[in-house]
Amino acid sequence: MAQQHLDPTTDPTVVPADAVAGYLRARATEFLRALRTHRETGGGAAGGAEESTDAALALRRSARRISGTLHTFRPLLDTDWSESLRPELAWLAGTLGREHAYAARLDRLVTALNRLSGASPFPAQQAMPGRSAGGLPATGPAGGRAATAAVGTRPAANPDRGNLTVGAAKAGALLDRQLTLARTRAHSAALQALGSSRFHAVADNVAVLASEVPLTPAAPIADLRPLAAAAHDRLRDAVTGLPLHTAGHAYNAEALIHGLSADTAPHPQDAPWHQVRLLLRLHRYALEVLHPEAVPVDVRLLAAGEALNRHRDASEAASAAAAAARTPRIAPATAYALGVLHADQRHEVEASRFTFQQSWQKEAVSTS
Amino acid sequence: MAQQHLDPTTDPTVVPADAVAGYLRARATEFLRALRTHRETGGGAAGGAEESTDAALALRRSARRISGTLHTFRPLLDTDWSESLRPELAWLAGTLGREHAYAARLDRLVTALNRLSGASPFPAQQAMPGRSAGGLPATGPAGGRAATAAVGTRPAANPDRGNLTVGAAKAGALLDRQLTLARTRAHSAALQALGSSRFHAVADNVAVLASEVPLTPAAPIADLRPLAAAAHDRLRDAVTGLPLHTAGHAYNAEALIHGLSADTAPHPQDAPWHQVRLLLRLHRYALEVLHPEAVPVDVRLLAAGEALNRHRDASEAASAAAAAARTPRIAPATAYALGVLHADQRHEVEASRFTFQQSWQKEAVSTS
Repeated sequence: MAQQHLDPTTDPTVVPADAVAGYLRARATEFLRALRTHRETGGGAAGGAEESTDAALALRRSARRISGTLHTFRPLLDTDWSESLRPELAWLAGTLGREHAYAARLDRLVTALNRLSGASPFPAQQAMPGRSAGGLPATGPAGGRAATAAVGTRPAANPDRGNLTVGAAKAGALLDRQLTLARTRAHSAALQALGSSRFHAVADNVAVLASEVPLTPAAPIADLRPLAAAAHDRLRDAVTGLPLHTAGHAYNAEALIHGLSADTAPHPQDAPWHQVRLLLRLHRYALEVLHPEAVPVDVRLLAAGEALNRHRDASEAASAAAAAARTPRIAPATAYALGVLHADQRHEVEASRFTFQQSWQKEAVSTS
Repeated sequence: MAQQHLDPTTDPTVVPADAVAGYLRARATEFLRALRTHRETGGGAAGGAEESTDAALALRRSARRISGTLHTFRPLLDTDWSESLRPELAWLAGTLGREHAYAARLDRLVTALNRLSGASPFPAQQAMPGRSAGGLPATGPAGGRAATAAVGTRPAANPDRGNLTVGAAKAGALLDRQLTLARTRAHSAALQALGSSRFHAVADNVAVLASEVPLTPAAPIADLRPLAAAAHDRLRDAVTGLPLHTAGHAYNAEALIHGLSADTAPHPQDAPWHQVRLLLRLHRYALEVLHPEAVPVDVRLLAAGEALNRHRDASEAASAAAAAARTPRIAPATAYALGVLHADQRHEVEASRFTFQQSWQKEAVSTS
């Protein structure tokens, strides 16, 4: 849409600030539409649970894009206004994402437990036909129970498998209890957030954005490309700081170092990878601003992003397994299964880094 | 040495049966020399423990080569005689290998526990300066204790590491107890075997071999190369049956499937790899027969063999960790650490297959 305002007789490659304004208006409009849908479907309380879930997902999607755009193109926007809105959008996106994160984590862990017990691949997905890929806040946590029931039935189907498989079933039941409780709380927290005055203030600000984007006086004559390029540079610099040489060696066994440390805090070695994941997302949003009609498809960047998502998911799943193992009075067989599960997920972390390194090397070669 | 009998005016590439006879005589002589050294050093009871260990290792080395050669070149050798000697040599080599195997397994597991606890790399080796790489039957199981003491001291050095690191220490102590007991028993069994009438019968047969190899009447006009080639073919065929396509994909997560199965039996998926390992050894011995002066160095075949050794070691270490987790009345933290350790070793299994696949592909390309 911004392209329509370009004067091709001057410099046709300049991308003016209009593009940022257009992008922000479009995302703000999406936000308000999603909010209306969410309210009309009763916030997932009854009936249209799936629509409500999709609406909450769309809310989060818009909030993240607005927040990212305010950050990347901040010299073009009214500073006070954008600096006060960004943390509020981050709070909203975080709150709306949590329920889904717990559901996905349980899914991942139950799928892994089934795989480790020698069950047919991906039974967790099969047991949860009703679970959407990005559902939040939805009707409530039913899918997780169905999935873990699949683990629970294994000893009956294979009565001679002994106590370690019972350990897997107990580990699955324990994780189901803990993560379902966390999911339920996240669901309530999200609903509560959407009814809060803090949220209404965010919605009011987004409504302003939908009609008029507060640009700085210098914005109309600015070129967006250097700011988008700076976002890309920050991504490249952060990637340079990653231990890619090690990650590129298959089976380097790095991810499980400190695997028996008792730290409940997230793995410190994962942090720079999480940071790159955020910077990759900001780079992607910046590309969306520059190419409002259609972002050029970059399969390798997509693969790199998926690898980092998997890295984050596996990292958090491994932490959840380790945390569950600290539950008082669990049986040794349960703890053993959680240990195997933790190590399995840490190897997923390592595998994701390997995949990222492979995608990134290809990208570096092709764009250099 | 066999090359001296060749008549280069006929076919200089024929390798006559003399080469087998020469190889067997040389190995039999080595066997008898090692036996004499072992007796002179008192079987490791006192004093020359290292010499005694080296002698037992040399005994096993010769026994394996004689047995393998009897197998590969059996059409050239008196059938009844060689078929009765082979299982006896296998029994001897197995008995002599067990103590070392338990010691190495404990080493491997303690090293892994240290790595998983975030300790400096390879402290186990540093803690065991007295342990030889292939020691059996030696003075007794002292090295293992020293190694595990290193794990045991970690919580004191890092008192805030919490109960999972204590779990690693307890897991190390449990493995130390179990594998040291197994090692002590294997040590006694080896000493007992070397004093048995069964062993004396083997030694008498080997003494015959040192002076005269019982060849068949057809042997003097036979060519060894087709028999050696058949050993190579058996190896290639067995490798063809391996899931190399999967193994060549890094992080395929195959090795940990059934990781939570309660089977105490060795992993069925490992068996074909163990079989290839044995066939690779037979191929190597056949090359030694064909090239008595010096086997041509094949770095890739060496790498493939090392990968299969590591595969076997990691497979057995993973089983030992799983077996220890079935000890009654262990603490959940101990069981958790054993679960992490088991998964870690199963990933070593997977990593070894990956390495083997890489070496083998190179070999296939270079020789095709």
